[in-house]
Amino acid sequence: MSAFLDALHARLGDAGLLVGGDLSAYERDWRKRYPGQALAVARPASTDEVAAVLKLCHEHRVAVVPQGGNTGLVGGSTPDDSGRQLVLSLSRMKRVRAVDAANASLTAEAGCVLAEAQAAAAAAGLLFPLSLAAEGSCTLGGNLATNAGGTQVLRYGNARELCLGLEVVTASGEVWQGLSGLRKDNTGYDLRDLFIGSEGTLGVITAATMKLYPQPKDRVTALAACGSLEAAVALLGLARERAGDALTGFEVMNRASLALVARELPQLPQPLGAAAWTVLLELSDAESAEHARAVFEGLLEAAVERGSVEDAAIAQNLQQAQAFWHLREAIPLAQAQAGLNIKHDIALPVSAIPGFVAEMDAALATWLPGAEVIDFGHLGDGNLHYNVQAPPGVAPAEFLAAHEAAINERVYDAVQRRGGSISAEHGIGRLKREELARRKDTVALGLMQAIKKALDPQGLMNPGRVL
Amino acid sequence: MSAFLDALHARLGDAGLLVGGDLSAYERDWRKRYPGQALAVARPASTDEVAAVLKLCHEHRVAVVPQGGNTGLVGGSTPDDSGRQLVLSLSRMKRVRAVDAANASLTAEAGCVLAEAQAAAAAAGLLFPLSLAAEGSCTLGGNLATNAGGTQVLRYGNARELCLGLEVVTASGEVWQGLSGLRKDNTGYDLRDLFIGSEGTLGVITAATMKLYPQPKDRVTALAACGSLEAAVALLGLARERAGDALTGFEVMNRASLALVARELPQLPQPLGAAAWTVLLELSDAESAEHARAVFEGLLEAAVERGSVEDAAIAQNLQQAQAFWHLREAIPLAQAQAGLNIKHDIALPVSAIPGFVAEMDAALATWLPGAEVIDFGHLGDGNLHYNVQAPPGVAPAEFLAAHEAAINERVYDAVQRRGGSISAEHGIGRLKREELARRKDTVALGLMQAIKKALDPQGLMNPGRVL
Repeated sequence: MSAFLDALHARLGDAGLLVGGDLSAYERDWRKRYPGQALAVARPASTDEVAAVLKLCHEHRVAVVPQGGNTGLVGGSTPDDSGRQLVLSLSRMKRVRAVDAANASLTAEAGCVLAEAQAAAAAAGLLFPLSLAAEGSCTLGGNLATNAGGTQVLRYGNARELCLGLEVVTASGEVWQGLSGLRKDNTGYDLRDLFIGSEGTLGVITAATMKLYPQPKDRVTALAACGSLEAAVALLGLARERAGDALTGFEVMNRASLALVARELPQLPQPLGAAAWTVLLELSDAESAEHARAVFEGLLEAAVERGSVEDAAIAQNLQQAQAFWHLREAIPLAQAQAGLNIKHDIALPVSAIPGFVAEMDAALATWLPGAEVIDFGHLGDGNLHYNVQAPPGVAPAEFLAAHEAAINERVYDAVQRRGGSISAEHGIGRLKREELARRKDTVALGLMQAIKKALDPQGLMNPGRVL
Repeated sequence: MSAFLDALHARLGDAGLLVGGDLSAYERDWRKRYPGQALAVARPASTDEVAAVLKLCHEHRVAVVPQGGNTGLVGGSTPDDSGRQLVLSLSRMKRVRAVDAANASLTAEAGCVLAEAQAAAAAAGLLFPLSLAAEGSCTLGGNLATNAGGTQVLRYGNARELCLGLEVVTASGEVWQGLSGLRKDNTGYDLRDLFIGSEGTLGVITAATMKLYPQPKDRVTALAACGSLEAAVALLGLARERAGDALTGFEVMNRASLALVARELPQLPQPLGAAAWTVLLELSDAESAEHARAVFEGLLEAAVERGSVEDAAIAQNLQQAQAFWHLREAIPLAQAQAGLNIKHDIALPVSAIPGFVAEMDAALATWLPGAEVIDFGHLGDGNLHYNVQAPPGVAPAEFLAAHEAAINERVYDAVQRRGGSISAEHGIGRLKREELARRKDTVALGLMQAIKKALDPQGLMNPGRVL
C-alpha cells in the first residue's frame, strides 16, 4: 500500500492527497449511518489526475469510492471500515466550463455544486431546472451518479433526462470524451445513460453537458382539497390537459401529514380545512402570473364541477406561494420533530396509487391499530413517501425495533405486486442492496452483473454498492 | 442446419416459419440497397416463442437479424447474402396490450405499427407523439431499436425519451420483464436505454411501455423569412422563451431548397418571397387556436423589431397550416425528382450550425462551383439534412461517382471538429459502420465492444451492424 500511496502523492501533490489526520468529513455520510475508515482521500484537480488515480488503483488493485457532496441517503459514497478503500473526492473539480445560450446547454465538472450550476444558467438568462433540498452542497457528478430527482421532475425529468453528454474515466483509467451538446445522436450504444444512475460502480463521471430551459415568466401555486386519492388522480389528468407543460408541480399530502404539521409546527397557516387529501399545484407560465391564475381558475372551476375538488385557494402573491410550498416542505421537518419513523421512497404507476394506499392503510389499521401513515409526495411522478409512525404514546424506537422489518416487507411486497419501484429517487447504495438482490427481475440482475464484469473486471469501482 | 430448422418448425409451426419460396419482402430493404438471402424467416407470435427462437439460435450458433417494419435507411434489418442468417420478424406480435389513461401510458408489442399505437392513444383521448414519414408501416420495436426521431422531437424527444419500460429477449433466450409504467425508478443500471438504439445487436425488444400526453387543443403554424442562419437561431431562442413547450416545430429551409421545390413542384404556393432562410414554426396549444395565434403575433412582432425576421405569415386555418408543412415535406420529393444526390443526416449543437454551414457552403462553392446545397431540417434539434446536388447540366450519377466519397469526408470532418454526430436519427446499421469505427471516440468504441461481448458472447445478434 505504501508504494501505491507514494505513487499517488507523486502525481497529486499535498493538496491532492489526504492521508491520516481527521478524514471524517469524507468517511461518513451526513446522517452518520455509514461511518467508515478510508485508506486515504484523493482529491484530483483535473480529468487527467482522475485518470492517473484510477490507473494506479487498477495497477495496485485498490478499491475506489467516488464521492461528490456526500449528501446521499443510501450509503453510496463513504468507504467501508476496512481502511483499504480509497475515497476519490471530486470536490476540487468544480468549474463551470461553458454556458452555450444559443444551444441552451451548460458544461460543468462533476464537483460543481448544484446551486452553482443553477446560478451559472441564471446568469445567462436561462433555467437549469434540477432542484432538490441538498442543492447547496450536493454536486452535479453525484446528481448524475444517482440520477437525482427533486421538485421539478414532473416537467423536466430526473438528472438523466437533463443530461446531453458525459466525460467519464473508466475503471482502467481511460478517459471517454462523451461531452456533447447534441439533442440527437444515434451513433452506437447509449453509454451516457449506463453511467448515469450507476452510483460510481462502473466508472467516474468527471464532467457533464446539461440541458437548459427558458426561465418561466412567473410561477403561481394553488392548493386544492380532494375527497379521495382517486379525485386527486382525476385532477392531475385535468391539470395536464388544461395546462400542458406549464404544470411543474403536483404534490399530495394526506390528512395525517397536515395534522402532524399542525401539531408540530402550529405557527404555519393552513389555508384550507382538513381534507382527506390536499394537492399543491404549481404552474410555471411562459406569459405572466395573470395568465397562470386565469388557467388555474378555469381548471379548478372545472374540477369542482366534476366533483374532483371540494375547495381551493390560488396564491395571490409570491409570499402566499411560498407559504403553500412551505406547508409541503414542513412535513419531513414535522416528522423529524416527532421522532423516528419508517420511510419509504416508492414509485408506482399513477393509476395504481389509490389501490396501493387503500390496501396498505387498511392492512396497517388492522395489524397495528393507531400507527400513523404520513403519506405525501410527487403524485405527478407516481412517487410517494409512504412513511409510518408509532401510535401516540408508543416509543418510536421500540415501535421501529418491533415492526420496521415487517412493515418494509409488506410495503415492498405490495409495491412489487403492482409493478412499482422500491427506490424511486434515492438509489440503492448499501442500504437497499440486499432488497434489490431479492426483488429485482433475475434476468435484469444477470445483465447488470455481466455489464459490471465487462466494465470493471477487477471489481474495484465502489464495491458492495448496488450489486 | 436442418436439425435447427426442424426444431424451429416444431416450436413455431407453419405460420411461424417461412423456409424457401419468395422471401424477398424480408430479405431486402425498401430502397433495395441491401438485398440479401435468409436461411429462413421466423415469425414468432409471442414472447415465449421469441425466447424459444433465440435459445435455438444460441444452441445451434445461428446468427439472427431482428426485423420490424423493414423501413430503415442503413441496412440494419435485412440479412447478408450468406444464406446463413435467420430473419426474426416481429410482425405477428402487434397487439396493443394496454392503455392506462390515468398513468398516461401505453403498452404494445414490438410489431405494433406506429400508426396503430397512435390510434390506440387517440381512442383514449391522449397523444402518442412519435411521428415520422414511415408511420404507416414502421413498428414500435424498430422505432426503439433505432431510437427513431421524426417531426415532434423538439417538444417530446426521440423514441428513447418516450419509453418507460421494455420487455426484451436476451441473446441466450431469457426474457427480461422490464415493462414499467414508472416515471421514476432508481434500482440499478439503465438497461432500458442500453437496448434502445442498439439496433438489435444486444437482444430483441418484444414489447414496450410508452408515455402518452394530453392532446393539444389546437395546432397553428407560421412561416418566417430570416436573412441569415444566425437570425434563425435567434428566432429559435425567442420562440422557446415566449412559447415554452407549446413550440413543437422549428424547421429551416435554405433558399436553394425552396427554389428547387418551385422548379420541381411549381403547383405548390410559396407564401413568402425568396429569403436566405425560411423557418416553419408550429405551436401546439393547450388552450385554443386563437391563443396560439396571439402568441405567434407577439413573437413575430418582437422578432421583426429585433431584426431577426424580415417577413412572416401565420396560417389562418388548417388548410393553410397543411400547405406550410407540405412545403417543408416537399423538399425530399423535389430532390428525388431532380435525381441522385448526396445526403447527410447530421446533428450539431445549435450554436455551431451557422459556422458549419458558412464553412461548408464556402468550401463547396470554391471546390465544386455550381454544386447545389439543399440544406433543410430540424433546427430546433440541431439536426440538418445537408444534401449536395450536381451542378445544373452535370449528370447526377457522374457527379456522385466522382465526388461523393470526398464530399462525405469533408462534411463529416467539419461535423466532427464541432462535436457533431454523423447520424442524428437514422442509426449506423451497415451503411455507417466503417465511418463509426473511424470517427467514434476510441474509448467509447472499447466500452461498446466490451458490452457487446458481455451480452452476446457468441456474436449472433445482428452481426456486422453497428460494431
